[in-house]
Amino acid sequence: MPENEMISFTRGVPDPETFPVDQLVICAEEALYREGKKILQYGGAAGYLPLREWIASQAGVEVNRILMGQGSLQLLDHILRLLVKSGDGVLIEQPTYDRTLTLMRRAGANVRPIDLTEDGIRIEQLETELLHGKRPLLFYLIPDFQNPTGNVMSLIKRQQLMELAEKYSFLVVEDAPYRMLRYRGDELPSLFELNPLRVLQLSSLSKLISPGLRVGYAILPPELATPLTKFAEDTYINPPYLNQAMVFQFIQKGWLNSHLIEIKKTYSSRLDCMLTALNNTLSEKGTWVSTPGGFFVGFMVNNSPGMDWLINAAKEQFIQLTDGRGFFVHGGENFIRLPFCALNHDQIRKGIDRLEQIL
Amino acid sequence: MPENEMISFTRGVPDPETFPVDQLVICAEEALYREGKKILQYGGAAGYLPLREWIASQAGVEVNRILMGQGSLQLLDHILRLLVKSGDGVLIEQPTYDRTLTLMRRAGANVRPIDLTEDGIRIEQLETELLHGKRPLLFYLIPDFQNPTGNVMSLIKRQQLMELAEKYSFLVVEDAPYRMLRYRGDELPSLFELNPLRVLQLSSLSKLISPGLRVGYAILPPELATPLTKFAEDTYINPPYLNQAMVFQFIQKGWLNSHLIEIKKTYSSRLDCMLTALNNTLSEKGTWVSTPGGFFVGFMVNNSPGMDWLINAAKEQFIQLTDGRGFFVHGGENFIRLPFCALNHDQIRKGIDRLEQIL
Repeated sequence: MPENEMISFTRGVPDPETFPVDQLVICAEEALYREGKKILQYGGAAGYLPLREWIASQAGVEVNRILMGQGSLQLLDHILRLLVKSGDGVLIEQPTYDRTLTLMRRAGANVRPIDLTEDGIRIEQLETELLHGKRPLLFYLIPDFQNPTGNVMSLIKRQQLMELAEKYSFLVVEDAPYRMLRYRGDELPSLFELNPLRVLQLSSLSKLISPGLRVGYAILPPELATPLTKFAEDTYINPPYLNQAMVFQFIQKGWLNSHLIEIKKTYSSRLDCMLTALNNTLSEKGTWVSTPGGFFVGFMVNNSPGMDWLINAAKEQFIQLTDGRGFFVHGGENFIRLPFCALNHDQIRKGIDRLEQIL
Repeated sequence: MPENEMISFTRGVPDPETFPVDQLVICAEEALYREGKKILQYGGAAGYLPLREWIASQAGVEVNRILMGQGSLQLLDHILRLLVKSGDGVLIEQPTYDRTLTLMRRAGANVRPIDLTEDGIRIEQLETELLHGKRPLLFYLIPDFQNPTGNVMSLIKRQQLMELAEKYSFLVVEDAPYRMLRYRGDELPSLFELNPLRVLQLSSLSKLISPGLRVGYAILPPELATPLTKFAEDTYINPPYLNQAMVFQFIQKGWLNSHLIEIKKTYSSRLDCMLTALNNTLSEKGTWVSTPGGFFVGFMVNNSPGMDWLINAAKEQFIQLTDGRGFFVHGGENFIRLPFCALNHDQIRKGIDRLEQIL
């Protein structure tokens, strides 16, 4: 790799080399030949029924609770628009997904952060908030391989959170796009599994097959299914059915499972490479959590010289960083998100070496 | 056709028999084989560049003014969310597209109707509004083969409207999804063509190729291009590229032109059938405009017994009507939209016969 080739530690995107192009061609052909006249017409706002039925059966819920969208971010936008009135309190883990913060602010929410530690949010901080009467409308979390930190919420904290959600009666929005990308250790129950009536789970096929197809979904609490589906219909009539029908074909043929095995092998070895590089090079310069899955390792710089300085210094060393402050309501001057999935081993090692140069 | 088969005069949808399934299979294959790794990845929010470039060159504008979306309704929602503050005045032709009214109300706009006549809005009514200081933020119109009436705005009224828009400095939003479906007579200049800097034109491929692909676009005034594209990115990162790449392949191969010739032949003969049936059967019972294109004929019932009565009576005669009041801010008790494109001649004639039974 040339010394002056830019290494991007910015967006969390899958490696395009993993995209199953040939298989998706077959899926497109079959979807169009089998029911082209149907999927090329306007359809219901909730999305392509066979895929919704598959998701519903996996989740053990009625199919009317499954709402498909053009990615799950769009569905989060609907949810916020429908539920949040200006000034309503919503909780997030801090740091959290930057695009979620943008949507919450746009909806006029009063966004309140709960600190994230290695095994999930500080429960006592949440309890204090709730005891002081600040009941939130909802709490948005990414319990598995969190974006941007990679952290996994422990089982006990999942249970404690859901107890508090019941007691103080707030909605939990669980974003689970990385959940199926666990590279080691045992799966924990999702928040949705702990309480399928109080949790609205968002997920998508973006990280598993292809983001460009824009196939995301929400598993809605029963009382939100009708109003949210209507909200979606009012906004764009229906999402594209072809893409959803292609994903359904992909699953039906058993290709999702074999594809997952393959991408997990690739991503797992990249994660190992990233963790080894961090251990070898940066253990004096900051801290991180050894995530067992997902797309990201979050790196907290000791004695940070500030984010503006870091971003500029990084550029001079041919690495691109995302502004850490974007993941925080307050702070983030010392936070660097390190996405590893779309980088090869050489890029990862060189990138961490270069990062060491500036710290 | 069985006597008790329901005939649907409800939604304005293309005839699925016209969908070019085999050609779209080829387009999907080519798009995926040529640049699958690119179109299956995340992309820019504005959409697939080659298609945007084609639209820009057709319109004679810079490509950064083209924003693609999951249908054009979604883009209208962005526009309203970005521009309208609660209580802002917006104008519409009355009657107008019901989904637009829904989005305007949702955005908190104060929706004010200007009456629509055979050759477009009542200009003197608009002038009076403007003279009384009620400057609107924007005016939404469908000048060609209007939904729901089929009316075409005359050239002189187009010019008068654009003069008033300049003088009173409001944005004109021109929705043009049916513009390329003219079955006779000469094309008039679009509002966008009359003033490409003051008009935001919306259109889509939904009526020309397939609605299910959800490929719509906006030609934005230069100053709105950056904020609206950012708004779209914040909402869903990007629309699906595969669908847009398929449409681009379809156009590149010259198939759009031949496909248009074919569907115009089909739809034109259905329109003739509708107008003949109305002339033969309903000329005493109401009035309509002999549209030269599009999807709809709007029928105004003389001495209407009210919309609830009409809808119920229609159901008993095995015809389904859309609630005419949905197209109006005030009124609509006597308005029946008659979409003819997805009905064959037998259904059209039977449908009008049955309508005659209840009037």
